[in-house]
Amino acid sequence: MSNEPTQALFVRMVTSAWTTQNKYLDDLLGSLTEAQWMQKTAPGRNSGIYLLGHLTAVNDGIIPLLDLGKRLYPALEEVFLSKPDDSGLPKPSVSELKNCWKEVNLALTNGMNKMSADDWFSRHTAVTAEAFAKEPHRNKLNILINRSIHQGYHLGQLAYLKNTNKED
Amino acid sequence: MSNEPTQALFVRMVTSAWTTQNKYLDDLLGSLTEAQWMQKTAPGRNSGIYLLGHLTAVNDGIIPLLDLGKRLYPALEEVFLSKPDDSGLPKPSVSELKNCWKEVNLALTNGMNKMSADDWFSRHTAVTAEAFAKEPHRNKLNILINRSIHQGYHLGQLAYLKNTNKED
Repeated sequence: MSNEPTQALFVRMVTSAWTTQNKYLDDLLGSLTEAQWMQKTAPGRNSGIYLLGHLTAVNDGIIPLLDLGKRLYPALEEVFLSKPDDSGLPKPSVSELKNCWKEVNLALTNGMNKMSADDWFSRHTAVTAEAFAKEPHRNKLNILINRSIHQGYHLGQLAYLKNTNKED
Repeated sequence: MSNEPTQALFVRMVTSAWTTQNKYLDDLLGSLTEAQWMQKTAPGRNSGIYLLGHLTAVNDGIIPLLDLGKRLYPALEEVFLSKPDDSGLPKPSVSELKNCWKEVNLALTNGMNKMSADDWFSRHTAVTAEAFAKEPHRNKLNILINRSIHQGYHLGQLAYLKNTNKED
């Protein structure tokens, strides 16, 4: 087995796990009403719309980390990453966020499709060349592993927006 | 870059993500009271003890999938995998489950430490050699990627057992 196919295989394993998580949120966007997104996922916990904005802002942040360009919606960062749900800051509507989610993932998918296996194993933009020489696991693909798990974490919470007779 | 170090790097990326998820549950086990584990994660949703048993049974199932031996606690499978929380089947106590969780992860860690990079890229035991020839991503390492995301999903729910003033 040559080096290149091994790398390509590993890239496929990780990108397909990430795509599966995105598809899960796409499915929720297709099945929950706007009123359901406005509810809290559990008493005293984050609302659906906050977590939707949070996951969109996190994916948007992957664009510069993979060196694919700038964030598409930098304004989401303060509302959904720096500040909590009850910050009092105005939030975009669910349909605006749905559109942001779609555009961010389209940009990421297009960008990722142009990346070579070597690109994936190069350092992500938030690690210095010096640190990367000592910690070669801090590559672009590792970003995607960790973001997939992070997304899974909040998808488990968003599942609570579904009716209780469809518990997951 | 030779093939072997590349494989070893992938393995470290994935096993370290998995270990991080386990540590998150270890931390919850150290911080939540037994009474908190008995509560539902949200109204009408799974209880803490059910999800603890569920994650333990899922990790126990990784042992045979990685060809490291048999499940340590096969009885958990019916209560926490096949049947839902409200099955009426008797559940082990939280302290019994804590011990199972600890023993399962000890067995997994010991077994994984003996696996070579090539072992990780070989087929897991639930895929046939024929299917694996067509779908080489269905290897042992892929099991761990998917199980880490699954664990993240339920950890997001278990975080709701914490007091609401420590929202996560």
